[in-house]
Amino acid sequence: MASEFELIAALRRRLPATGPTVLLGPGDDAALIQPPPGQGQVLSTDTLVADRHFPADLAPALLAWRSLAVNLSDLAAMGAEPGPLLIALTAPDLTSAWIDGFCDGVLACLAAHAPSATLVGGNLARGPLQVSVTVTGWVPPAQALLRSGAKVGDRIFVSGTLGAGLAGRQALGASGLVPAELTLAAVPAALAPYLTPEPRVALGLALRGKATACIDISDGLAAELGHLAEASGVGMRVDPEAVPRVGTFEAALTGGDDYELLFTLPPGEASAEKLTALAVLGGVAIQEIGVCEAEAGLRGLPALGQAGWDHFSQP
Amino acid sequence: MASEFELIAALRRRLPATGPTVLLGPGDDAALIQPPPGQGQVLSTDTLVADRHFPADLAPALLAWRSLAVNLSDLAAMGAEPGPLLIALTAPDLTSAWIDGFCDGVLACLAAHAPSATLVGGNLARGPLQVSVTVTGWVPPAQALLRSGAKVGDRIFVSGTLGAGLAGRQALGASGLVPAELTLAAVPAALAPYLTPEPRVALGLALRGKATACIDISDGLAAELGHLAEASGVGMRVDPEAVPRVGTFEAALTGGDDYELLFTLPPGEASAEKLTALAVLGGVAIQEIGVCEAEAGLRGLPALGQAGWDHFSQP
Repeated sequence: MASEFELIAALRRRLPATGPTVLLGPGDDAALIQPPPGQGQVLSTDTLVADRHFPADLAPALLAWRSLAVNLSDLAAMGAEPGPLLIALTAPDLTSAWIDGFCDGVLACLAAHAPSATLVGGNLARGPLQVSVTVTGWVPPAQALLRSGAKVGDRIFVSGTLGAGLAGRQALGASGLVPAELTLAAVPAALAPYLTPEPRVALGLALRGKATACIDISDGLAAELGHLAEASGVGMRVDPEAVPRVGTFEAALTGGDDYELLFTLPPGEASAEKLTALAVLGGVAIQEIGVCEAEAGLRGLPALGQAGWDHFSQP
Repeated sequence: MASEFELIAALRRRLPATGPTVLLGPGDDAALIQPPPGQGQVLSTDTLVADRHFPADLAPALLAWRSLAVNLSDLAAMGAEPGPLLIALTAPDLTSAWIDGFCDGVLACLAAHAPSATLVGGNLARGPLQVSVTVTGWVPPAQALLRSGAKVGDRIFVSGTLGAGLAGRQALGASGLVPAELTLAAVPAALAPYLTPEPRVALGLALRGKATACIDISDGLAAELGHLAEASGVGMRVDPEAVPRVGTFEAALTGGDDYELLFTLPPGEASAEKLTALAVLGGVAIQEIGVCEAEAGLRGLPALGQAGWDHFSQP
């Protein structure tokens, strides 16, 4: 079996740490970067656990894409430009071929969604299969998209189509496909929202200076609406018929794994022309689904059995 | 069982994210910080896997200390002042009491070694017991301690006593103590180097502008000497009798888990007075063990069965 040092050396050859901020990439005790003047730094970490957040036999390229994408989605929700990132990977036994596939997925996801991002460090150890990614990004502090800025009268929007993540997860189980045999180049369309989610980095950047609040929809629309409303101190009225969805209301509202953005715009930013411009810049359809009101609480949603997708308390 | 949201809320109450750089702590999609002007940022991540890097039933306060300490050690080796950090924790089933103990360890280790550090984010998920910490720190880029700056004629130094980490690990196994019943307030002295290692943050800061190269000794002195020599393009002659150690040469040279600093100083920085000042500022004894030479390779070390402590290829 290849040693830790050999595998790390292979990773470094395939993933050179370059970029305007990188003073020192992997290979020392830590990376050293030069923060761009005037920018705030956004920091987030997310862990994917085998057989909980992905099938343990998933092809490594798809695991890498998914691990990066769910983390980049948090940067998108803050309106941040992706920067240096670190990957902590544990696996029971790693081969050079597996690491090579993992590199393919890292390179493809970064090229597609975060060409400014650079892998500057990480950790590789034997253990249960699990990936923790730490992402950093840059945004002028005053332009960061928080959860807390929605005002009464602001319109509520979502990007993309909800329920697709859950549908993809279910379709993978029902498809008879072997996860290890899937390739990045040929992910079936129905599975793509789950296996290769598209973090809305471009939309997040386009929303800077416009959106009053923003969050990504990793845990289902109903839960995220609640987070935005609570953080902003407003109520929200939603038209469930307006929510772009595949599958049932329940899937769209609580399915999770969609990684779209939920955001609010003041009426002056919600003209048809401005919304079209946002959709073009963001590379994804956006849809108005409701309005912020003074009275606390969520209104208009159908009764649901479960408020959101709590990864931790799931069986 | 407490939900993920309840446990995270408990963590936030006990670990408020404050500090001059913190614009926004946990609770949004990501944290937002303001990098201090003129500082470079050091970034590193390290994962501890249950029953590989610590006993699975280790008291959570000790697990937290050890997880932070091994990461702070990487900042120390760069000469960085600790800043924002993130903790990604997975565990099969978590209780409020366990989380409370974990918080105790986080708070104690940060108070002792990194009062400037702040927990700004993290991840909590059900899975195999494992902790990935991502640390960031600050250092003026020109003062960062790299592995690559040692020059011919520079003297070679280590802090503390080597072999103590391995001795502690072995003593824990032989002691009959139940790891779950250990407490931070009463760690037996022989186990402390393994369970509550002391990252040499103060020494790293004291070495800024003085050391020509520096590395932490997580993988054993022999391996780290090789890293420094190779990165700097020098050879090294070491007097093994000078290495402060407990146990055998083999333990001191390849045992790993010591988290002391190995560094080089030019002759002008190696006077008795200057070394005394360094030891006082660093809060730890330092010992000269050799000299950098022009001819590549390590000389003076006894023959060893194994070059370093490769966490990954260990059984």
